[in-house]
Order: sequence, then C-alpha cells, then structure tokens
Amino acid sequence: MNTIKDLQILIEDAVTKLQYPLYPAELYEPITYILSVGGKRMRPALLLMACDLFDGDVKAAVPPALAIEVFHNFTLVHDDIMDNAPLRRGKVTVHEKWNPNVAILSGDVMLVEAYKLMMQVETTVLRQVLEVFSNTAVGVCEGQQFDMNFEQQDQVQIDDYLNMIRLKTAVLLGGALKIGALIGGASPVDADLLCSFGEKLGTAFQLQDDILDVYGDPDKFGKQVGGDIIANKKTYLLIKALELAGPAEKKELDQWLTATDFSVTDKVAAVTALYNQLDVRQYAEQAMQEFAAKAFDALDQISLPEDRKQYLRDFADGLMVREK
Amino acid sequence: MNTIKDLQILIEDAVTKLQYPLYPAELYEPITYILSVGGKRMRPALLLMACDLFDGDVKAAVPPALAIEVFHNFTLVHDDIMDNAPLRRGKVTVHEKWNPNVAILSGDVMLVEAYKLMMQVETTVLRQVLEVFSNTAVGVCEGQQFDMNFEQQDQVQIDDYLNMIRLKTAVLLGGALKIGALIGGASPVDADLLCSFGEKLGTAFQLQDDILDVYGDPDKFGKQVGGDIIANKKTYLLIKALELAGPAEKKELDQWLTATDFSVTDKVAAVTALYNQLDVRQYAEQAMQEFAAKAFDALDQISLPEDRKQYLRDFADGLMVREK
Repeated sequence: MNTIKDLQILIEDAVTKLQYPLYPAELYEPITYILSVGGKRMRPALLLMACDLFDGDVKAAVPPALAIEVFHNFTLVHDDIMDNAPLRRGKVTVHEKWNPNVAILSGDVMLVEAYKLMMQVETTVLRQVLEVFSNTAVGVCEGQQFDMNFEQQDQVQIDDYLNMIRLKTAVLLGGALKIGALIGGASPVDADLLCSFGEKLGTAFQLQDDILDVYGDPDKFGKQVGGDIIANKKTYLLIKALELAGPAEKKELDQWLTATDFSVTDKVAAVTALYNQLDVRQYAEQAMQEFAAKAFDALDQISLPEDRKQYLRDFADGLMVREK
Repeated sequence: MNTIKDLQILIEDAVTKLQYPLYPAELYEPITYILSVGGKRMRPALLLMACDLFDGDVKAAVPPALAIEVFHNFTLVHDDIMDNAPLRRGKVTVHEKWNPNVAILSGDVMLVEAYKLMMQVETTVLRQVLEVFSNTAVGVCEGQQFDMNFEQQDQVQIDDYLNMIRLKTAVLLGGALKIGALIGGASPVDADLLCSFGEKLGTAFQLQDDILDVYGDPDKFGKQVGGDIIANKKTYLLIKALELAGPAEKKELDQWLTATDFSVTDKVAAVTALYNQLDVRQYAEQAMQEFAAKAFDALDQISLPEDRKQYLRDFADGLMVREK
C-alpha cells in the first residue's frame, strides 16, 4: 500500500506532465494555468488509493485519476464565472485573467479532455467507469445549480441543504473511489460500498467545514474565521439557526443578514452569539457524526483485509479532526 | 435505405421523447427548451444514414444520433453566450430567457448527457465511437475559439479561415458520419473515408453559405442577404477581398469596415461592388468546388455498392445547389 501522500505526489507529477496543444492558445493555456494553481490533488489520490486497496495497478489508474482532477478543475473554472470569483487558491481566476468567454470554452474542452483521460482504462471496465463518471458529473452540476438557487431563496430546508452538499462535494469523492475500486478489480458490491463511504465522509467533511468556519482555530483553519457569516452563506449553521430561532432571535438574525453597513467583527460576534444561544453547533456536530458513522458503517461491510480497512479508517479520522 | 427525410422525422420524434429530471428546473428546462426550438436535425440524420448505408441497425443508432444533436445544441447554448446573441432560430436564446449562469451550467450538463447517449452503443465499438466523439468535440471547441480570435484580428489568412470552418462546422458532420458508419459495421478505412467525405462537403457547404450571403436569391436564402457584410463578418469573400485589394480598394473597404453610421443598403451594395471588382466570388466558388471534388473523391473510394454511393452523391448535390 502506498500512503496517500505518495499518491498525491504521484498525481502532482503526472499533472505537470499533461500536455496540451499550443493553438489556439486561449483554449489551452487556461487549462495548464488552472491545473498549475495547485490544490491538494485529494480526489485523484483517492482514486489511486481505492485501486491500490484492491491490489490494482496504480500506474494504470493514473490517467483516470488525472481525469478526475481535470474534471474537478473544469468545475472550478465554470463555478468561478458563475460566482463572479476574482481569486481561486490565491491566484486570479481564469475568467478574470482572460475573459468569461475563454473560461467557458476552455472549461468545455477540459470536460472533454477529462473524458479522454477517463477512457484510458481496460475495455472490461470502460463502460462501468464512464457510467460512474457521467453520473458523478451530472450530480456535481445539479449540486452547483441547487447551491445557486439557495442563494436566492429565503428559506432552505436542512434536507435540501444536505442533498446539495452531497451533490456538489461528496459525489465526486464517492465517484473517484468507486472508479478506482472498479479499476482495481473490486466487486460491484465493494465498489458501491466504497462509493458510499466516500459520499458520507464527504458530506461529514463539508459539515465540519461549516462548523470550522465559525468555531475553528484561526491559526489552523485555512480561511478567515466567520467568512461564511460575513457572506451570509447558507451553511448548516445558518439554516438551522433560522429554523430554531424564536421571533426575537429571528429579528436579530434578519437584521444582520440584511445589513449593508456593518463592522465585520461585530457581525461575526453577534451571529456566533445567536448560534451559541440556539445550540446550532451541537446539531451540526450531531449531523456530522451521523454521516461519519454511516461512512464507517459502509467501510465495515467492504470485503477487504482488516489492515486495509484500518488504513481507510485512519485516513478518514485524519480528515475529520483536521485543523480543529 | 431510408430517405434522409425519414431519418430526420425519426430523430425529431426521438428528440421529443427525451426526458430529463424536473429538478433543478434551471438545469433541465433549458435543455428541453433548446431542443424544442428545432433545427433540421441534419447531423443526427447523417449519423443514421451512415449506419443505414452499411446495413446497420438504424434503431440502435438512435441514441448516439441523439448524442450528436444534444452535443450540437450544447455548442449553440454556449456559443450564444459568447456571441451575446439574443435570438437562435427566431427564439430567445437560453442565456437571455434565463441568465448566463443557467446557460453555462445547463450547457455543461448537456455535454455530459451527450456522452451518456453516445455510450449507448455495442461494447465492440464503444471505445472507437467515444474517441471519434471526443476528438470531434475538441475540434468544435477549437473552431469556436479560432472564430472568436479572428473577430479580433485585422488580418486572417485564407488557410486559417478554411481550417476554422472545418473545425467549427465540418468536423461534426464528418464525426457524425464516421460514428454512424462504425455502428453500422463499416471497416475503419470506409469509416474514415466517409468522415473525410463529410468534412470536405461540410467545408464546401460553409463556403457556399458565404457566397449565398452575398449572391443568394433573397427569396430562397433563409437569412438576410448581405448580413455578413453588414456585420463585417470575416467570410471567405471578405478575407479574399482584403488580400487582393489594391490601395484604393483597400481604403474603400476599410472605410466601410470602420463606418459606424451608414445606410445598410449602401454598405451591402458598395462592398458587393468591390467583391465583384476583385472577382472574389470566382475564388470562393473555385475553393468550394475543390472541397466538393475532394468529398466526391473520398466517396468514390468507399467500398459500397454503386447505388448507395449514388445515393450519397445525390444527397451531396442536393446540399450544394441549395437555394441558389
């Protein structure tokens, strides 16, 4: 078994070796650019790890792993246009560095390139792998659309939110693991269980992210603490708070949500105080634990030697206590 | 052999039966909308025709034919954003009816749905079909990028223009024919020859379109005669005229190209007079004939009974004398 770090390095190396045509430059330079901006290469590494778990040929799984990374970056390029984001991982976004048309079209070609990479698997698993990949891709698009819709809605239900983060974030982790498992020779049942493990863990991870935004250690948490509060982002915490708030709390929360001129520190402090009053952290942690438990439950059912399952458990534990 | 009209009707019927999920509505409604706006369904019909030519099972080729149509409509949705087009086939474009974000994301999901449809072929040809499809898709994206680049360039070379229209328009016709041929059981050589036939014919057809824009019968030509001239579109005629123009003609042409306040009728008449003076129509027709000849040359080499080749010749002739 390779460590996840080794696999991340393997992918990082393979990403730098990806070559695209020189012309038209506006189509291909953004691909190299966004892929060079980095990221942890966690999704492709998970695909390789899944293949490795079932004693598959990790080297043979590199092209489909790259497909997952190219696909993920395609979604970033298009999401950044839609979200009007100036920066991605601290660097100028593609639509800002070039223009929105370039970002649309180079994103499109990235999706096709992702399919081309994904096709580089044995013919015996080609159809299955492409089906998982396509369904994953549709799910990610649905997640992004729900996310944009929620921005415009006054009320969002917790279940709809959980479904949105599942689609937007977790299905790609599940899909990457399932594809890796299929390439590695796992049975369909085991591949599905590993997919479920990834999806549940991904959802738990996103819930943890919502919690850490408010309650994380500013020195350890990568982003600005309270960033979601400042941006009125409809996280699990805010949705739950709106659900639980009495008239007075609702009024205060609404005031902060509609305020246009405010002190950032005051807003974060006041909304956090309301969250504390309503115990929403506890609800969020409970939901997170439930998803983590479902992930471990799926893991327990996989037909793998105990040491390999333990390896996955350790990996998941490592994710779930991240920088708290 | 089915007639091309029969095949167009078959596809039209299959398009109306395509069903997508209800939610998120913003993701799926635009797909049904753009597909309902019509078009002649020529590309998918060509795929079916190619399958039919080689005595393949036309019904089995319907899903990949739909894939071609969904893919084509995906390119229309994204191109219309990039071109800032208000109308498509006389109806409001997706980004105008909804908004650009919806058009980006529903376009993305259409590309994935196209792959899902394209995968519905026998496993024996799955990889080949998907390779042709992916390469076609990349070509179409490259063509659109070159087209956008040319809009910004003062000078465009004739060969670059021919390559652009090949990519933007012709490779999809060639790809559709090749995929249909492969599904129909054609040999790789015959599939390539039919692909070449489609690509050359598609290029000839686009050159004819350039000519008809200026010299077509207004009653028969579907669009406004002179539309390309009014919009300063860099067609074969304009590029050739700029290449051949002496100093005086260049000056007059430049005046019309940079004019902001002008009579549409005067501009069309003046630029057409310049085209006549420089004989650009003759060059364009010669180029068109050369591509048509190459198409027929490829056709001659295909291993098919003479009556089927004659069918293809008649089909091509029908295209090439369209509404002149």
